[in-house]
Amino acid sequence: MPKKRPLILVTNDDGITAPGVRMLIEIMNTIGDVIVVAPDSPQSGMGHAITVNNVLHCNPITIDEGPQIEYSCSGTPVDCVKMAVSEILNKKPDLCVSGINHGANSSISVIYSGTMSAAVEGGIEGIPSIGFSLLDYNYHADFRQCADFVKSIALEALKNGIQEGVVLNVNIPKLKKEEIKGIKICRQANGVWKESFDKRTSPYGREYYWLSGEFVNKDKGEDTDIWALENGYISVVPVQFDLTAHHAIQKINSWDL
Amino acid sequence: MPKKRPLILVTNDDGITAPGVRMLIEIMNTIGDVIVVAPDSPQSGMGHAITVNNVLHCNPITIDEGPQIEYSCSGTPVDCVKMAVSEILNKKPDLCVSGINHGANSSISVIYSGTMSAAVEGGIEGIPSIGFSLLDYNYHADFRQCADFVKSIALEALKNGIQEGVVLNVNIPKLKKEEIKGIKICRQANGVWKESFDKRTSPYGREYYWLSGEFVNKDKGEDTDIWALENGYISVVPVQFDLTAHHAIQKINSWDL
Repeated sequence: MPKKRPLILVTNDDGITAPGVRMLIEIMNTIGDVIVVAPDSPQSGMGHAITVNNVLHCNPITIDEGPQIEYSCSGTPVDCVKMAVSEILNKKPDLCVSGINHGANSSISVIYSGTMSAAVEGGIEGIPSIGFSLLDYNYHADFRQCADFVKSIALEALKNGIQEGVVLNVNIPKLKKEEIKGIKICRQANGVWKESFDKRTSPYGREYYWLSGEFVNKDKGEDTDIWALENGYISVVPVQFDLTAHHAIQKINSWDL
Repeated sequence: MPKKRPLILVTNDDGITAPGVRMLIEIMNTIGDVIVVAPDSPQSGMGHAITVNNVLHCNPITIDEGPQIEYSCSGTPVDCVKMAVSEILNKKPDLCVSGINHGANSSISVIYSGTMSAAVEGGIEGIPSIGFSLLDYNYHADFRQCADFVKSIALEALKNGIQEGVVLNVNIPKLKKEEIKGIKICRQANGVWKESFDKRTSPYGREYYWLSGEFVNKDKGEDTDIWALENGYISVVPVQFDLTAHHAIQKINSWDL
């Protein structure tokens, strides 16, 4: 860990007023100097979206007391990280943390998640980055139960660094602190969202849909994030943004192209 | 290739009327039975976003003549694929193609790209999937120059299949057909968008930003998509959606957690 207090960028996808990010700010205030750049509205499911067809607003804001400096941004979680790095901060932060998300981002959900995409963007920018999610969609979820674990993982990341090209996806089961069995480093489980669209008719007679779905785990491995979470552990998956399927190159080279 | 005509799902991120997708439909009509489910408005930069905070509309539409059946959808490219698979098609398509994108999706751009995220969603759904992009942002780009290559890659994918968990990211240089040197199977170059925000003031005195940026290639390798494109080749990168950085697990296991 740097001798002077580290500079920590905090963001999320549930919006700057969400209880999950307020708790994350409170935890990070005990570790370093905190800058918050977070969306002004909920941005769940935004994945790695950036705003290219519209303008962005970004303004200082005070949500609650504390030493943190905060900005509310009209864009996506990834926009917030870009805005922070390029416009707001005059140095690269020592750590970027995103969350604490209201709900799981394990298995394939990592790819749809605004929380994790913000962390991935931090990694692309060369900042050690971590996304945190609690397996509880309730707005009034008890984030305090996981505070010590979040702090411990952030401190270890500051102490050890995270290798280039890698960010951490941390999911925390909905358990009391003393019920959590420990922290497991895992791989992403092979799962899929089996969607179902809820078709309805508007008061004006027009049909519309709500996207809905159910997660299906196709992976029996005991080294996955889903297994860890189902068995009372916090899961930590190292995530990369080199998406190349290196193992597939040789096979496709045999095609008649 | 299946004996009967394959069922091909076509989508994109530039919107259902964009010249790139109209050319892709024309090409796919020569190979199989085509269903188009594409966004009703431009969705560039939407990454793997899905619509969870709003409703979706999806309606049959006729844009131009041809045997294809088309639907226009109010959602993101990923929503379009989910809608096609779950609501519109009564069987899994044999191939999902996305594009042809107006502009490059090489290197790290794969992660921001709606075109590629639609293809990745196809892969997640278990469909052999390919995203196509032409390195020309011009609305009137000459997509016909690359038609034979697009057809050839699609036919090979139908013949050979694409292994589970892998989708193809195809980028095509802005060259005449006879100037293209060939097709190279590549890895994703290590590059980054160095953003710059263009700060302006509205007529009402409020400051706002346009996200802008410049691509920086940090990779000197001759096995990358950027190298291939700069040297007159079409690049094909196999892309995976297991984001686990397997090589990083051991290191993080040594942390004091």
